[in-house]
Amino acid sequence: MTIAIYPGSFDPITNGHLDIVTRAAKLFEKVIIGVYEKSDKNLVFTAEERIDLVRRTVANIPNVEVKAFRGLAVDFARQAGAQVMIRGLRMSADFEKEFEMAMMNRKLAPDLDLLCLMASQEYQFLSSSLLKEIARLEGNISDLVPQHVAEALGKKVQGKM
Amino acid sequence: MTIAIYPGSFDPITNGHLDIVTRAAKLFEKVIIGVYEKSDKNLVFTAEERIDLVRRTVANIPNVEVKAFRGLAVDFARQAGAQVMIRGLRMSADFEKEFEMAMMNRKLAPDLDLLCLMASQEYQFLSSSLLKEIARLEGNISDLVPQHVAEALGKKVQGKM
Amino acid sequence: MTIAIYPGSFDPITNGHLDIVTRAAKLFEKVIIGVYEKSDKNLVFTAEERIDLVRRTVANIPNVEVKAFRGLAVDFARQAGAQVMIRGLRMSADFEKEFEMAMMNRKLAPDLDLLCLMASQEYQFLSSSLLKEIARLEGNISDLVPQHVAEALGKKVQGKM
Amino acid sequence: MTIAIYPGSFDPITNGHLDIVTRAAKLFEKVIIGVYEKSDKNLVFTAEERIDLVRRTVANIPNVEVKAFRGLAVDFARQAGAQVMIRGLRMSADFEKEFEMAMMNRKLAPDLDLLCLMASQEYQFLSSSLLKEIARLEGNISDLVPQHVAEALGKKVQGKM
Amino acid sequence: MTIAIYPGSFDPITNGHLDIVTRAAKLFEKVIIGVYEKSDKNLVFTAEERIDLVRRTVANIPNVEVKAFRGLAVDFARQAGAQVMIRGLRMSADFEKEFEMAMMNRKLAPDLDLLCLMASQEYQFLSSSLLKEIARLEGNISDLVPQHVAEALGKKVQGKM
Amino acid sequence: MTIAIYPGSFDPITNGHLDIVTRAAKLFEKVIIGVYEKSDKNLVFTAEERIDLVRRTVANIPNVEVKAFRGLAVDFARQAGAQVMIRGLRMSADFEKEFEMAMMNRKLAPDLDLLCLMASQEYQFLSSSLLKEIARLEGNISDLVPQHVAEALGKKVQGKM
Repeated sequence: MTIAIYPGSFDPITNGHLDIVTRAAKLFEKVIIGVYEKSDKNLVFTAEERIDLVRRTVANIPNVEVKAFRGLAVDFARQAGAQVMIRGLRMSADFEKEFEMAMMNRKLAPDLDLLCLMASQEYQFLSSSLLKEIARLEGNISDLVPQHVAEALGKKVQGKM
Repeated sequence: MTIAIYPGSFDPITNGHLDIVTRAAKLFEKVIIGVYEKSDKNLVFTAEERIDLVRRTVANIPNVEVKAFRGLAVDFARQAGAQVMIRGLRMSADFEKEFEMAMMNRKLAPDLDLLCLMASQEYQFLSSSLLKEIARLEGNISDLVPQHVAEALGKKVQGKM
Repeated sequence: MTIAIYPGSFDPITNGHLDIVTRAAKLFEKVIIGVYEKSDKNLVFTAEERIDLVRRTVANIPNVEVKAFRGLAVDFARQAGAQVMIRGLRMSADFEKEFEMAMMNRKLAPDLDLLCLMASQEYQFLSSSLLKEIARLEGNISDLVPQHVAEALGKKVQGKM
Repeated sequence: MTIAIYPGSFDPITNGHLDIVTRAAKLFEKVIIGVYEKSDKNLVFTAEERIDLVRRTVANIPNVEVKAFRGLAVDFARQAGAQVMIRGLRMSADFEKEFEMAMMNRKLAPDLDLLCLMASQEYQFLSSSLLKEIARLEGNISDLVPQHVAEALGKKVQGKM
Repeated sequence: MTIAIYPGSFDPITNGHLDIVTRAAKLFEKVIIGVYEKSDKNLVFTAEERIDLVRRTVANIPNVEVKAFRGLAVDFARQAGAQVMIRGLRMSADFEKEFEMAMMNRKLAPDLDLLCLMASQEYQFLSSSLLKEIARLEGNISDLVPQHVAEALGKKVQGKM
Repeated sequence: MTIAIYPGSFDPITNGHLDIVTRAAKLFEKVIIGVYEKSDKNLVFTAEERIDLVRRTVANIPNVEVKAFRGLAVDFARQAGAQVMIRGLRMSADFEKEFEMAMMNRKLAPDLDLLCLMASQEYQFLSSSLLKEIARLEGNISDLVPQHVAEALGKKVQGKM
């Protein structure tokens, strides 16, 4: 059984993340979403909130599990028994940084392979940070995130301004 | 009449910005410089100061107007009746981020088109942030910004060190 | 009156080109499509065919004209009385080459400005060369080009294989 | 059962390709290497030779099959019953072109997913074309390709010079 | 005698930096490592600590000197009598930013040339910031930095968590 | 004594090449320009012509030598007793390809180091191929190449059209 992990901050999960998870879940027996459990003042949501938003988003995909993790993603992968780590690759993302991290991960955990799924065309330009900026400026985010995420983000952003 | 907006932080306006505005003013009936009116501790100048520096810089170009704005640039464009948004494109800028924003803007405001003017060769490597770093390190900035901006930046930087 | 030229080989014109022309025609009084009149064995269509396909594609846009040209695009622009040259910018295109050409054009014709319109999301990954490759391999190109271009390309490709 | 195809020209297969196939074979039940069966004067080896070199290279990996194909890779994938197409991603490769092809493939075959494995560090800078150039200039290629490929390439290159 | 400077923050020095210095020391009569002497809360080590770690790392290379500097690197170069500034170029680094800085430096100090040495393959993906992140997450950094740096970083990171 | 080689096709030598050679000649005791002696139908000038144009261009720089070479540049470097190979790096050039070649060279000749000099701002966008295209289209190239090169290129281009 091939187990894949899909690690990230998910602050918050977007339709772009959901697209990657849905596709990965068709290819692998089990996909574990690893939500990084750090407390970071730059994040809008707490770890508990981020995990909860991810859980509700993927509730309908039977072979997807959501877990919190600390430390290196490669160590989390090892503990979870995963053979492969998933990354969504957006053209507008910092591709070189992805490569840097990939090479370093291969060095730290040679047994864990890294697979990239290229973001679907409609999500090529969607990132959590851009999403939050739009929300802060009161732009419409309804088709960029699931409904419950839009609501949660709306409350957060109002509370902060 | 085609109205163009040219939004930004302008912290402070440089000769590179002035070059873009001057060229845009030849192509469009009216160019509105939108100075983002946020208070941000990462900015060196206050919104009032930035607007004032911009106003003095473009005082001689008759079809250019300077306005402050809040919220999304696309909403500001709509209120200003603009059909087109101008961006200066530098080769050394983060091109992918520009694309990300462009695509998001098109999504948020399909009627507003985004036009890029490529920076002139002598300003390809000039950014407000690099300018401020040079000023802080007491380098010579006299041919990178208008005289009154150089003076204002000099005072700010002295005051902060 | 601002006149814009939009030069290229158009071998053949695609929906991506049409999108750029349509948008430019909203911003400028007159847009002149310049079809490069070289005979090149790497091109699938003759100059006459390419011009004809372009003409039929833009027949409904009143302020768009189609002209053949030889020599430097900047010289063609000057003769046509254009103040601005239009380029469609695709993220997947060779951005650095665009810059190289832009800077050289500015050097050759300082009065002519170069404006880039970023390709719409659905045409970000569409190029004439990729289109021809798909057609050769008998893939479906019906929503990448106007109907009459699809037919012309189909005949060309059959004739060559 | 997840079936993956790994299409290419393989002119000739390198240790970099072998690395990708070996890793893919650990993740998927079956990997089909699709060797593009075109006759092209730019290729050094004939289709038969390329297929033979690939077969001998992967002879020891039980769940890897080698097939020739014509036409679109996505059509070949469909006929082979594959759910996923594999690409090796090298940092020095033309990343934007990869994206362009990926998006076009998704358009042509929405059911087929594209997975990228990032090249291992020692093969980041190895391409078939660079390999052939080195061989032509009589450089040492012994640790860039399997022994039988080095010999075959040596003969070809001598024969051509 | 050609004198080269190699400026940076060195927070901390890595095996990648050491590789660049060692190579530069073979090409130039004298290499001066300039450690930027700013106090910055984003840095893990104090200026004294960073200088000390650099000094111990290059102690065995006779024609390398270590100096602290403030202000512009180009002014430091001038005072040190250097004709050339060295930069290590990593493919995963922000190449455009390097160019921006290089062009600005040339403008500020036309006499000082900038030479780039491309990072060796094993250090292509190693940066001080990635190193610190791995150390914070308790990953193994023993072959990325000299032994005494690994120990110093270990203590810092423990002390902060 | 540090000897540097600067290999290339030089079809023809441009002011950009001359700028790199001039700067390299200030840093190293001896600079050997290696002109690749291949006969290639894609080149405009013969090997003899290219060598002659290079020789006349650098006639006034005493520590620069011009030599023809065949085979790998790294082998030529070894025979010439060079410790370092020089490359001019233009932002608009294919940076990834440069890296690929650099890494391969390091593999083929670990003792030979590769140094990149970033092109001066006025030559950032000048390449031999763009130059030839402008000449073919009868554009003005007088400040892109030395006078004698402009004349030679003018004759060649006329002869071919």
